[in-house]
Amino acid sequence: MLSKNQIKFITGLHQKKYRDEHKLFIAEGFKTISELLDSNMQLHELYTTKPLNSDAKATLITEKELAKISTLKTPNRMLAIFKIPEPQPIDQSKLILALDDIRDPGNLGTIIRLCDWFGVIDLVCSLTTADCYNPKVIQSSMGSIARVNINYMPLEAFLKDSALKKIGTFMDGENVYKTILPEKGILIMGNEANGISKDIEALSDLKIAIPRFGELQETESLNVATATAILLSEFKRNSTEK
Amino acid sequence: MLSKNQIKFITGLHQKKYRDEHKLFIAEGFKTISELLDSNMQLHELYTTKPLNSDAKATLITEKELAKISTLKTPNRMLAIFKIPEPQPIDQSKLILALDDIRDPGNLGTIIRLCDWFGVIDLVCSLTTADCYNPKVIQSSMGSIARVNINYMPLEAFLKDSALKKIGTFMDGENVYKTILPEKGILIMGNEANGISKDIEALSDLKIAIPRFGELQETESLNVATATAILLSEFKRNSTEK
Repeated sequence: MLSKNQIKFITGLHQKKYRDEHKLFIAEGFKTISELLDSNMQLHELYTTKPLNSDAKATLITEKELAKISTLKTPNRMLAIFKIPEPQPIDQSKLILALDDIRDPGNLGTIIRLCDWFGVIDLVCSLTTADCYNPKVIQSSMGSIARVNINYMPLEAFLKDSALKKIGTFMDGENVYKTILPEKGILIMGNEANGISKDIEALSDLKIAIPRFGELQETESLNVATATAILLSEFKRNSTEK
Repeated sequence: MLSKNQIKFITGLHQKKYRDEHKLFIAEGFKTISELLDSNMQLHELYTTKPLNSDAKATLITEKELAKISTLKTPNRMLAIFKIPEPQPIDQSKLILALDDIRDPGNLGTIIRLCDWFGVIDLVCSLTTADCYNPKVIQSSMGSIARVNINYMPLEAFLKDSALKKIGTFMDGENVYKTILPEKGILIMGNEANGISKDIEALSDLKIAIPRFGELQETESLNVATATAILLSEFKRNSTEK
């Protein structure tokens, strides 16, 4: 049974303002919650409509109560609240991914999952990038958020302060397939509609592009998440031994 | 001004059954509609809430009417109805992409856009794959649907009848980065949750995988659209000259 105040508190966490204030975020669905419970994320509260077979302490609630606190149209058995972890220092000895103003939570979630797959530990987001603790990001990153160190900071200052090579993605950059990519560096992906901003472009040491193959050459651009997939694959493909 | 019957007819097209019956589909939003108008797709009707600066014949409707016929939560100025084109014969001299039971319309739309980018003309979908004229697919393919030839057919029969090499994607396949990929062939992508089905697996000549790089090796799998992006990039990367 949830009190009015509890419902108000939880639905407050749908918004960034209250997530930042309380340092808590919401995760939903069995799979995402299980992955987060298995990680180093700290559970704050777990609500479920059915008793669990696990050791996790959970509060039993009704379907109706779940619908009230859920961020989903079709709530999915359980909702958990986790503590937002403190970001760790950035490791400048490896490949880092930097996002310049990525606005779509689904794209950000997919990119976090890609970082996890390709072993990119540090993701640096401009202050205008979508909040990684937005429930839609948590949903589409599927637990990967526990394995990627995400820092929000003014991107220009971060790039200026780093001695690493900065590789920006542009429509008119060098053919990535013909470019020798460094093992460490900062790969920068730009906004869905406008690409990388002028200030960040000025800080790029190398400009790369994914060539277009269609004869008609009319496809406007790749989605930023699929472009990130292709580029991380290019950075990592030469390091496989198998 | 729309009659009740017109509204009923258009909202009917939200469903596959009526799209198939009338051979018509819905597209929304200025950008997608513009791209389709510039393509070889045939316009059936165009509805707009603001007079257009173009030659296209359009019916002026109110915002309220648009809301009634739209498939979007936030309708976007215009809605068009296009004729579903007749699928063309499949060109067996090039790389073909085959989808085995891809259910998510957003994934299908992204995959169509990727085909367009990478110059893959033929997309073959199993009969259980999402309908490519679903409004969500049209939305996420952003006009690319006009430049990709999409056939729905029993996938097993299609693969059995083709002399091309069949390359299936599996979690335990060969490292794609170390595999010599043919210039022509059929690349097969499987269902979001279950991968390629047993019957289709039996018809695969080559099994490939995208290796995982994360140290923890816990990421369950890549999203099928991002995996398709990486694999099409691998097939095409050696053919660039620049």
